[in-house]
Amino acid sequence: MTTGRIEAFSDGVFAIAITLLVLEIHVPEDPENGLGAALLDQWPAYASYVVSFFVIGIIWVNHHAVFDYLKVADRPLLFLNLLLLMFVGLLPWPTNLMATYMQEGGADERIAAVVYSGTMAAMGATFGALWIYASRHRRLLGDTLSAEEIRRRTVRFVAGSPLYTLSILVALVSAPACLALNALLAVYYALPAGGAMAHRRVT
Amino acid sequence: MTTGRIEAFSDGVFAIAITLLVLEIHVPEDPENGLGAALLDQWPAYASYVVSFFVIGIIWVNHHAVFDYLKVADRPLLFLNLLLLMFVGLLPWPTNLMATYMQEGGADERIAAVVYSGTMAAMGATFGALWIYASRHRRLLGDTLSAEEIRRRTVRFVAGSPLYTLSILVALVSAPACLALNALLAVYYALPAGGAMAHRRVT
Amino acid sequence: MTTGRIEAFSDGVFAIAITLLVLEIHVPEDPENGLGAALLDQWPAYASYVVSFFVIGIIWVNHHAVFDYLKVADRPLLFLNLLLLMFVGLLPWPTNLMATYMQEGGADERIAAVVYSGTMAAMGATFGALWIYASRHRRLLGDTLSAEEIRRRTVRFVAGSPLYTLSILVALVSAPACLALNALLAVYYALPAGGAMAHRRVT
Amino acid sequence: MTTGRIEAFSDGVFAIAITLLVLEIHVPEDPENGLGAALLDQWPAYASYVVSFFVIGIIWVNHHAVFDYLKVADRPLLFLNLLLLMFVGLLPWPTNLMATYMQEGGADERIAAVVYSGTMAAMGATFGALWIYASRHRRLLGDTLSAEEIRRRTVRFVAGSPLYTLSILVALVSAPACLALNALLAVYYALPAGGAMAHRRVT
Repeated sequence: MTTGRIEAFSDGVFAIAITLLVLEIHVPEDPENGLGAALLDQWPAYASYVVSFFVIGIIWVNHHAVFDYLKVADRPLLFLNLLLLMFVGLLPWPTNLMATYMQEGGADERIAAVVYSGTMAAMGATFGALWIYASRHRRLLGDTLSAEEIRRRTVRFVAGSPLYTLSILVALVSAPACLALNALLAVYYALPAGGAMAHRRVT
Repeated sequence: MTTGRIEAFSDGVFAIAITLLVLEIHVPEDPENGLGAALLDQWPAYASYVVSFFVIGIIWVNHHAVFDYLKVADRPLLFLNLLLLMFVGLLPWPTNLMATYMQEGGADERIAAVVYSGTMAAMGATFGALWIYASRHRRLLGDTLSAEEIRRRTVRFVAGSPLYTLSILVALVSAPACLALNALLAVYYALPAGGAMAHRRVT
Repeated sequence: MTTGRIEAFSDGVFAIAITLLVLEIHVPEDPENGLGAALLDQWPAYASYVVSFFVIGIIWVNHHAVFDYLKVADRPLLFLNLLLLMFVGLLPWPTNLMATYMQEGGADERIAAVVYSGTMAAMGATFGALWIYASRHRRLLGDTLSAEEIRRRTVRFVAGSPLYTLSILVALVSAPACLALNALLAVYYALPAGGAMAHRRVT
Repeated sequence: MTTGRIEAFSDGVFAIAITLLVLEIHVPEDPENGLGAALLDQWPAYASYVVSFFVIGIIWVNHHAVFDYLKVADRPLLFLNLLLLMFVGLLPWPTNLMATYMQEGGADERIAAVVYSGTMAAMGATFGALWIYASRHRRLLGDTLSAEEIRRRTVRFVAGSPLYTLSILVALVSAPACLALNALLAVYYALPAGGAMAHRRVT
């Protein structure tokens, strides 16, 4: 199995999961106070659509950045990647959960936020594991990256785990704050720090 | 990240969003006056399916026309493109909203049309911004296009914004007229004026 | 726009439409006479899933057979193809309609069958138009096909229209007979007669 | 039709089917005992999501392993592959059925498990038939594989049929045991025994 094959399949799952997110935004039926009020009421659906869209988009970018450095693929990588895709493909569900319960208040709202953050955390941890597996002793890497560059990426991808754990703790207190923290984490992984996305190439 | 990669991922999102549109056309359940009448009653669903299908199809064509001229991709382009895809991926929702409320009349019908036109306007504005970012000082372009050709495309892609703003104003008055105007705008962007789609190439 | 680009996008729409068909098969809720009986009761859903799946699959095969002969693509071809994809993408809806009403009996059942056959007919007519546009005076074809081979394909692709018209007439009498006729038409287009699919090539 | 074409289309169907699985996991509405209890209650949905996700993922891997050895494709292979994709595309439905009825108990639960296992068995049998058709007398194979390697793959792919038949018998007794057996079968086909997945290649 070439890495190109795995990338093409992964791209398909990323593109479908990102586009299925729209199914969580409902069309209000028989709104009592008019459609306008009903549409404003479901702002959590828009907020979680935007956050989840960019999270998947940014994981897709980082996924390519990692696969660009791989020289070969082996079976454990294949299964770590399948595990990662399982969490990516799952994301429309916690997004829907968040959209439904973020306006409810009480324990249910925080439980929804914990599930949302938990899925993100699982996705981040799998991504970190995939990177460590591939880069440890340059197992699947070529010589493109220096030891220092590998180390910086490792710090960056492993830093996700404590940060996502923090977001689960925040979810226990406030769902909107948890969503905002997840948006911030997306911005962090979108920034070129660590160089994971800093390369620019001619087609 | 090569432009080919971004194009393939974008194509995936375009193809999925365009095919998800069908989910907004419902199968009538227990129709009182027979299935025939119920099917005719939901003509707004067919009309908005057709308009949205061709809008996405034409953005896809213009998206390729733009990416064909790009020599390199950088991070801001990547995120402008992700923003564009976010509106493309969102389109099944306002289409569904339009299909549901266009037969309702009153304020709700016009609100649905405003949301529909607003999404189109946001999509058009993002597309214009992406083009301006890429073409200003030939930032990401090669030498394929003359200064005059760049200028003509800029006029064309930026012209969308006032036209879409107009369609939002029309939405405040009549939902069907707004849908018709969006169909006209699609025809405008499908025509080869400006040359954006006028090229013909051997495989 | 290269023909390769159009093919890749079309393949995406074919693959998504064919996979969305499964959403029309429902999971029975609270079945009165047990799940077994409820599952057997919805046999029209399985039958229309199978027929629609193979119809889309076979159009996909013939679509490639046609595009393999194209040397260039132009704007009208692009829009005829988009029109074809619009009917392909629509197919899950009449399939769902057929699955829902084929066990109902009466006028509703025959109306559902007419819509189903009508969509198939529109798809077949668009396919025929696309072929005629591309092949007339060898407009978009290279020299791979002899005049005789072109003529045979034209007969084959245009023959669909009267046959599909016949299936609409059959729909007016019996929905199951109409579904069976559509299955037969799929078999006809799957057979190598006319040579559209008779070629075999090394990768 | 080149084998590359068939593979790309098949990959699309695999990626979409695997990502549609998430639609079977519902967002609980108005849970009586709180969202937490409602989420725990629907554990069968998570379990069947995970099993079906890995089953599709592993069939995808083995599908590529088989197509990598094909030198040519012919019409019967095309239709065997379309039949295989029909069962792959169907999988979200029995997964949903399993998720809905596995907590119900009684005959309905076991019927759902029989349908689930039956779909898996049909998929496995089609895969075996595709392999036997392609490999018998090296019909579509090149010289990459030795006679011994072909024989080992045949044993492996044909072994699925009695094993899946066994899982249908288990389904008659216990739905959770049947799901667990299907998970075990996935692990079996994920292991490199028989060498189907044992190759490792540079990109």
